[in-house]
Amino acid sequence: MNQATVPRWSAMEVIEGCARAGYLGVGLWRDRIQEDGVVRIAKYAARLEIEITSLCRGGWFLAPDATARRAREEDNRRAVNEAAELGAHMLVLVVGPANDRDLETARRSVGEAICELASYAMTRGVSLAIEPMHPLYCGDRSVVVTLAQALRMAELTRSDGVGVVLDSYHLWWDPDLEQSIANATGSILGVQLADWLAPPPDPLNGRGMLGDGSIDLRRFCELVRAAGYDGPVEVEIFNPEIWALDPAEILELVAERYLANVD
Amino acid sequence: MNQATVPRWSAMEVIEGCARAGYLGVGLWRDRIQEDGVVRIAKYAARLEIEITSLCRGGWFLAPDATARRAREEDNRRAVNEAAELGAHMLVLVVGPANDRDLETARRSVGEAICELASYAMTRGVSLAIEPMHPLYCGDRSVVVTLAQALRMAELTRSDGVGVVLDSYHLWWDPDLEQSIANATGSILGVQLADWLAPPPDPLNGRGMLGDGSIDLRRFCELVRAAGYDGPVEVEIFNPEIWALDPAEILELVAERYLANVD
Repeated sequence: MNQATVPRWSAMEVIEGCARAGYLGVGLWRDRIQEDGVVRIAKYAARLEIEITSLCRGGWFLAPDATARRAREEDNRRAVNEAAELGAHMLVLVVGPANDRDLETARRSVGEAICELASYAMTRGVSLAIEPMHPLYCGDRSVVVTLAQALRMAELTRSDGVGVVLDSYHLWWDPDLEQSIANATGSILGVQLADWLAPPPDPLNGRGMLGDGSIDLRRFCELVRAAGYDGPVEVEIFNPEIWALDPAEILELVAERYLANVD
Repeated sequence: MNQATVPRWSAMEVIEGCARAGYLGVGLWRDRIQEDGVVRIAKYAARLEIEITSLCRGGWFLAPDATARRAREEDNRRAVNEAAELGAHMLVLVVGPANDRDLETARRSVGEAICELASYAMTRGVSLAIEPMHPLYCGDRSVVVTLAQALRMAELTRSDGVGVVLDSYHLWWDPDLEQSIANATGSILGVQLADWLAPPPDPLNGRGMLGDGSIDLRRFCELVRAAGYDGPVEVEIFNPEIWALDPAEILELVAERYLANVD
């Protein structure tokens, strides 16, 4: 369960709620871990045997000037430290947006920035997950929009500590999805699920509950498994209609929908 | 000028307004040509020496049952007839959405349907333009989202009368854009421009005036010219804030922005 699906809960509450509901892991958000403190969260998760499957998020490498760029580098190292302290499986990277409408240059700069961060992350034992995002976000979030592109970028870092995270919401439309997922064998650090509502009720917070949208989630997960991935699958749904429910109910609903539409 | 940018004008008014403002051609919409009548529009455009650069739109091939499918086939033939009577450069095809969340099957069915329609369109001298649409529309409009995919589909029809239309709004995010546009040489039937606002204020009617968004429109048009295309370039902007302006002013603004951002 990703915390973004149950934002009314603090990190500690997500861990507690997930343990109670029989979930095995939680994905956390950096802007929510200060409430409880990283060390306390890590201890509590360990005690309840809940894995921290991901920490969202680092990245945003492409600042418009050198000062801002340095500030982001430092913030990314802090993110790596937090992921290390939490024992998170991966730090998710949002890689964009471009400056001056120049996607090609932006993609090269992002590649270089990831290389640099990867050296640091290696020393802390943290894996970096490049997240290809739906082209809907190409203008304001990510210049990496296909899995093939994320894989090439990960490869260019020549680092075992850099891989990809596959989110059904971001990837389902890709005509080369089957081949790209097969090519991702060995590089998949995590998987996230949400459905696609058509048309999306909101560009940021318009993701759908599993089964409510256009995505063949069963096939998506079969492709991922066929690529050798057997790690955790998070459900990450940004949607105020879902957030309005009681968080414990959301957990029940997600489990029910997962069984009906995926497993 | 595409009529969708100045929807307050009827087809006749667009033709008249464009002639007055020094535009050379107009793209028209099927749902707006009945107001004035196809024959009358064609004659008026000829008299004012305005080309009909496109007719939007045919397609929507994937009806859920056989009856609906036949109805759409018939409607597509009517669209071809209208394009022929107007002397339009191309009939734009929207190719989707999928039934039952099955994009692969949908893509195959669309290919077959275009083959069939192409034989008919040939007899009427009408070119069919497959429009790859932004993945934002993969759920409710088009299963063809990249130019590479549209080109493969056009190629498979083995028909000279089938090509592609390139819209900056739909294509700008593609990591293979440069190569795909180069590969499109000889298959480009038309070009449309709008900018990408980030985040889009609306999924359907949130397109941006040239220069207001994330797209390097100059580069887009350079790539298209480098691929040998020297035909008309339409500006097609769905945006109620722009629609609220006086249509004649919109024409002025577009011309000004085109000169500043493209030419």
